Amino acid sequence: MKKYTAIHDIHDFSQIINEALTIKNAPFNNKHLGTNKTLVMLFFNASLRTRLSTEKAAKNLGMDVICMQINNSWNLEFEDGTVMNLTTSEHIKEAAKVIAQYADIIAVRAFPNLTDKNQDNAEIIINSFSKYANVPVVNLESSTAHPLQALADAITINEFSKASKPKVVLSWAPHPKALPQSVANSFVTVMQQLPVDFTITHPKGYELNTDITKDVVINYNQVEALKNADFVYVKNWSAYTDYGKILSQDTNWMITQDKLAKAKFMHCLPVRRNVIVEDAVLDSENSLVIEQANNRTYAAQVILKKILENLD
Amino acid sequence: MKKYTAIHDIHDFSQIINEALTIKNAPFNNKHLGTNKTLVMLFFNASLRTRLSTEKAAKNLGMDVICMQINNSWNLEFEDGTVMNLTTSEHIKEAAKVIAQYADIIAVRAFPNLTDKNQDNAEIIINSFSKYANVPVVNLESSTAHPLQALADAITINEFSKASKPKVVLSWAPHPKALPQSVANSFVTVMQQLPVDFTITHPKGYELNTDITKDVVINYNQVEALKNADFVYVKNWSAYTDYGKILSQDTNWMITQDKLAKAKFMHCLPVRRNVIVEDAVLDSENSLVIEQANNRTYAAQVILKKILENLD
Amino acid sequence: MKKYTAIHDIHDFSQIINEALTIKNAPFNNKHLGTNKTLVMLFFNASLRTRLSTEKAAKNLGMDVICMQINNSWNLEFEDGTVMNLTTSEHIKEAAKVIAQYADIIAVRAFPNLTDKNQDNAEIIINSFSKYANVPVVNLESSTAHPLQALADAITINEFSKASKPKVVLSWAPHPKALPQSVANSFVTVMQQLPVDFTITHPKGYELNTDITKDVVINYNQVEALKNADFVYVKNWSAYTDYGKILSQDTNWMITQDKLAKAKFMHCLPVRRNVIVEDAVLDSENSLVIEQANNRTYAAQVILKKILENLD
Repeated sequence: MKKYTAIHDIHDFSQIINEALTIKNAPFNNKHLGTNKTLVMLFFNASLRTRLSTEKAAKNLGMDVICMQINNSWNLEFEDGTVMNLTTSEHIKEAAKVIAQYADIIAVRAFPNLTDKNQDNAEIIINSFSKYANVPVVNLESSTAHPLQALADAITINEFSKASKPKVVLSWAPHPKALPQSVANSFVTVMQQLPVDFTITHPKGYELNTDITKDVVINYNQVEALKNADFVYVKNWSAYTDYGKILSQDTNWMITQDKLAKAKFMHCLPVRRNVIVEDAVLDSENSLVIEQANNRTYAAQVILKKILENLD
Repeated sequence: MKKYTAIHDIHDFSQIINEALTIKNAPFNNKHLGTNKTLVMLFFNASLRTRLSTEKAAKNLGMDVICMQINNSWNLEFEDGTVMNLTTSEHIKEAAKVIAQYADIIAVRAFPNLTDKNQDNAEIIINSFSKYANVPVVNLESSTAHPLQALADAITINEFSKASKPKVVLSWAPHPKALPQSVANSFVTVMQQLPVDFTITHPKGYELNTDITKDVVINYNQVEALKNADFVYVKNWSAYTDYGKILSQDTNWMITQDKLAKAKFMHCLPVRRNVIVEDAVLDSENSLVIEQANNRTYAAQVILKKILENLD
Repeated sequence: MKKYTAIHDIHDFSQIINEALTIKNAPFNNKHLGTNKTLVMLFFNASLRTRLSTEKAAKNLGMDVICMQINNSWNLEFEDGTVMNLTTSEHIKEAAKVIAQYADIIAVRAFPNLTDKNQDNAEIIINSFSKYANVPVVNLESSTAHPLQALADAITINEFSKASKPKVVLSWAPHPKALPQSVANSFVTVMQQLPVDFTITHPKGYELNTDITKDVVINYNQVEALKNADFVYVKNWSAYTDYGKILSQDTNWMITQDKLAKAKFMHCLPVRRNVIVEDAVLDSENSLVIEQANNRTYAAQVILKKILENLD
């Protein structure tokens, strides 16, 4: 594997999931692979799970890890030809090429602004690092995608699935803040690769990018959509069409034990209790959220392993 | 040892101190113990000594260390049943369980607010991590206790003591800011476990929590209290009864070479020169403050070693 | 080597450069040297290249690295005899001695204020660490010097030089902010040690400290100075005589491909495109900036290696 900036960098999902589960059983078996290799992680936004799980995964593989929280003092320029006599002090061309001098793999987190759809869709930060750094780049959640989360979700569904073709539902839920579509986007993309019966449910107006959802069934009736579900993945996102807007905070869309029935509950965390989902669900045995978080390590580790094996 | 959130997690002080001194003589002798084990340190407040000494101790044992400075963007919810539609974005239940997926030991620093005594005494942060994380928790200074500091202090007294039952005095000293009682509390608790003649001296109104001081002699006359002392531990704290208040900044309580006589001077650092203690003391051979700081490493290391030995 | 706070800590430049190039060819050959040794890096200012390259160098040598970004909550006192009842909470005497308990080498970055020349020239932070810490200190850029950058520059010139005595020109270039003289100072100092034909060019008023430039030729005509240059090192700095002031933002001083002719272009980065230098230069094969950044690792590594070899 040459990079992991999008789900489509995985060509054989079944193989990757199986290898991740092998790693989960023996996480320290490939510690030689990362010897004398350095992962540099750049966070343009805060992180808990992604930082800890990716650092842990890299160290499980024997890598050195340097984690940098980018603060406001580092103003990068992304445009070509700019006369940089204002606020930007370093061009991404130099920044990416320089960091690649010190890193064998660069991992980057950069959230969207949710104000300019075209700008967010351009994925300028992660794409610029990919373009200018001559080392593999890993996406730690970008403007439109969170492929490590989606891989961890796929691993978790694989582990807990009893049916040959389980019914998986992605349900929108309310949230007081405008959140990115990235987790939902990547989950939708992965579900299209797996042997599942997949449905999306959300209030009208919350349609995701149709280039991503393609022909996935969308049901605006949450109760109907959830019927006989095996896995219910819950997530808030802000509107894509009316970009970045909060169109609804309808508390009726909160997930309850009643609605869930026997389905497993999934969420990428952090989750607002009794807003996204009621306590009874999170505190029940049907909640997979902690195991999803655990699988973040093995999702990152299988990706880093594949990239390390392809180095040199 | 299953955890180290309070002094009382140590059952045999003499054994722990001796083992710490053995480690001090050969700090790298147990480097296999921590192989493939990760310490995650969470700092809700700034740290110099605690961060460096604990990270050093963990690496001396061969552990991987991930250090996270918690900033204002991570608003944890601690109450049960809250509808989290306001400022808190993650519940401690999820946070603790998730971090435990990536850590073999979690260490936490969380200072008191010094405004609500009951809330500070509840130790909600450290206790919540202990309750919800299924891995051992270490206290890096909480609202009411600093047990790693107190263990380092005990090690230092043991190293420098010439008497079979030395006289140890804890003296309050003035400070321009309202400081926690945690260092004093843990020092008092430890002194009650050691073969020492222990006295506390402070201005009236600065009585510590009597559940902690119990029957320790309190002498409001500093000069009298310091007579014939072998060790003088100096520390400011804000009032406990009139909670969090500064009742005195009386410069007469500053420690001078005259008052100290032949006693050894101890302080946890950082120390305000010529406010807490005059230069002459800190710059003399009777000052043990640097050795106390050095022993922070071995205090942390013996605790981590005991916890690692008890894992699995 | 006992420390590296200034260029003059290197006694044999030719030997150091050759050893750095040997390390560059086999960076992991001395990994035993740093076993059980800790580098503590203290950044009073932001850092990208210096942090990454120095951490990488230390880990190449097998060291543990702890990196601390010093924020505003740590107010150090540097004066002797102060009654510390105001904003400073810890004296450098304690801070340096304490950190030395946890570090085998301490590396420090502390920029100038550019308001008080005498204060900046006193280099109080780096000198205080050198005075009070009983372990070697490395300069990660101080008020007046950036010796690791200058060593990387010397290595780069050595690598790319075809002439036995190449012509090297240091040229000032415009910048919208007042920048330190430290990079220029250290570059000038190093050039005086190497077999090069060295000239400085800048507008009148931008003379560097004459204790540093000594008898180096200064040519106020940039075009004339650049004639037949083999290497052109470009850097902005604020005035030294009229201390910290911006006297000119004359865009005619920007480096262009025309001015550069066949010379190699050097800059320490970050660089403002089309302000310091036009795109055409940075994007050409004559630009050595990325290789300079790469050589930061080997400059740091040869210094750390020399210091480690001298420990104990």
